[in-house]
Amino acid sequence: MTPSNPFSSISRRTLISTAAALPALSGTLLSISAPARAGDLPTQGDPLPSWNDGATKQAILDFVRVTTDSSSKDLVPPEERIAAFDQDGTLWVEHPLFTQIVFCLDRVGPLVEARPQLKDREPFSTILSGDREAIGRLSARDLFEVVVATQSGMTVEEFRADVKKWLATAKDARWKRPYTELVYQPMQEVLRYLRANGYRTFIATGGSAGFVREYSEKVYGILTEQVAGTEQAFKYGYDKDHRPILIREPKLVLDNLGAGKIENFWLMYARRPYAAFGNSSADDQQMLEYVKAGSGARLSVAVLHDDAKREYAYGPAQGLPNTSIGTFSQEMYDMAKKQGWNVVSMKDDWKRIFAFE
Amino acid sequence: MTPSNPFSSISRRTLISTAAALPALSGTLLSISAPARAGDLPTQGDPLPSWNDGATKQAILDFVRVTTDSSSKDLVPPEERIAAFDQDGTLWVEHPLFTQIVFCLDRVGPLVEARPQLKDREPFSTILSGDREAIGRLSARDLFEVVVATQSGMTVEEFRADVKKWLATAKDARWKRPYTELVYQPMQEVLRYLRANGYRTFIATGGSAGFVREYSEKVYGILTEQVAGTEQAFKYGYDKDHRPILIREPKLVLDNLGAGKIENFWLMYARRPYAAFGNSSADDQQMLEYVKAGSGARLSVAVLHDDAKREYAYGPAQGLPNTSIGTFSQEMYDMAKKQGWNVVSMKDDWKRIFAFE
Repeated sequence: MTPSNPFSSISRRTLISTAAALPALSGTLLSISAPARAGDLPTQGDPLPSWNDGATKQAILDFVRVTTDSSSKDLVPPEERIAAFDQDGTLWVEHPLFTQIVFCLDRVGPLVEARPQLKDREPFSTILSGDREAIGRLSARDLFEVVVATQSGMTVEEFRADVKKWLATAKDARWKRPYTELVYQPMQEVLRYLRANGYRTFIATGGSAGFVREYSEKVYGILTEQVAGTEQAFKYGYDKDHRPILIREPKLVLDNLGAGKIENFWLMYARRPYAAFGNSSADDQQMLEYVKAGSGARLSVAVLHDDAKREYAYGPAQGLPNTSIGTFSQEMYDMAKKQGWNVVSMKDDWKRIFAFE
Repeated sequence: MTPSNPFSSISRRTLISTAAALPALSGTLLSISAPARAGDLPTQGDPLPSWNDGATKQAILDFVRVTTDSSSKDLVPPEERIAAFDQDGTLWVEHPLFTQIVFCLDRVGPLVEARPQLKDREPFSTILSGDREAIGRLSARDLFEVVVATQSGMTVEEFRADVKKWLATAKDARWKRPYTELVYQPMQEVLRYLRANGYRTFIATGGSAGFVREYSEKVYGILTEQVAGTEQAFKYGYDKDHRPILIREPKLVLDNLGAGKIENFWLMYARRPYAAFGNSSADDQQMLEYVKAGSGARLSVAVLHDDAKREYAYGPAQGLPNTSIGTFSQEMYDMAKKQGWNVVSMKDDWKRIFAFE
């Protein structure tokens, strides 16, 4: 049994008897394509070192234990171990504007130049006004329209290159760092902890899947095929050299707002996740409800943005103003309490927010 | 290092240095959910023992070698190793009727009873006639209509139970065996061989993904989330006990016919596969063309049904009558030759067709 092929001498019987331990590798395997970063390895004793002790941390530890301990009545077979994560506001910062919308902003100018009739139409006129507060008040559906309009007409390769180029240089105005560094360290630990216990981790975003897929592997260790999002159509065709191409079409196929997120998760993967993490009534509420209502042990976690100092505080559940994003409504808060979800207080539950702190 | 946790004492450095070998486990891991069956383990010397020596077998072996050998100029990074397989006519028998259509046939009676206006409408009147030859001449799009109409209105759990029950008892008329035994043993070997070399294997079917997902893990070792197919909408709601449910809706969302198969593959997974296997001009032609046109080493394989004795012979490419299914057109045959696909002659390339032979 040499390091370069450690399994060549292992019999099939051994492989099957140890198969329950094998999914533990997938997280590590994926991380080979990710740059080394602070906190990349779980601490030996505590898999969630950036979490303060409390009900939510304990609920996550308990959930993993009872669904993976072979003597547990709630043991989940390896093929069914699936966890779904919203992205904006759950895995990374969404305030004051979704990162994807920032990406779209300077693409609206050229779009309107090519199609001047859009100039006086909402939401384009608000976008062109440059008034970020007004832009922040646009509805998620308005923002969809901007996304679909600005992310169409190019080949999938051209779009990919454009996103990568933007991500490499764009910086958040407050932290002066690339957006891909504004990911929540406590959630990175949850992703790795779940994968280390055989869970396959998925993103279920209300945003456009195509955008998130360009960094999901490097940033979260999540493969492109495990990113479900709002998605537009693709059209097969040929370029001038008669090579086949796929073009992004301005037509919405999968709409992940509202119940669409869990409806489309089933459409894509045919699984009810055992664990789900979200933060917004606009697109996570039904997913969290559906997951929690499943048989056996299920974990639904909702992130409350209540840390004005280290991150942001917003949303009706705290009596704060509503915005188009991250709407943690009072209704969802009551539902969480009634149905036994866990609510994360970023202020109290998270020891640190970002890896760079 | 105990068998129950063989990796507890392995350092991160070792894990990374052996990471290239790790994907080899995924196939084995998946097979824990599959019943033991003949040929479950690759032969030590020959990973494709049911293939006769020839150009196509050699092309498969060469493709795997050059895309996984770390010194090869065509080495494919682990995260990009994706292979896509059509199902009907590529992984299992599709003649004289798609298995999924057989499943639908006795569901048309109750449907027409509930909605009598369908009785005189095509394709329902042909289905009700019981004339299997006429049914076999219906277009793939006609068959879609039957699938969507008969696979709607129930919860996802009810549908799942219905498919499982049917598969457990239904038998093919010619071989008198469950349909799930009518899978091509040479292709099972290709699936396992690819997974043993770090490829993730996907199904890309023109049929309904929901149907295929009910047996893909047991029969092919392919997880439900790795099955892409034609798919209808799901609707979130509540049952009489106020529990959240997902209902199958009679509305087509993803149409995998024609170029739809590769367009929707991108929509779901955002990858151009490195290898693709198909057999029909009706839904595989663009996928095979697109895969072959990618950079580096790519493998496109088209299965020609030319074995009237052991299976069936049909399709225009052999000057045989066209049917709605498995249309291997002369145009696709010419394209295959021109673009360097490999065409499988079932008669000449396959030593045996089924595991039970």
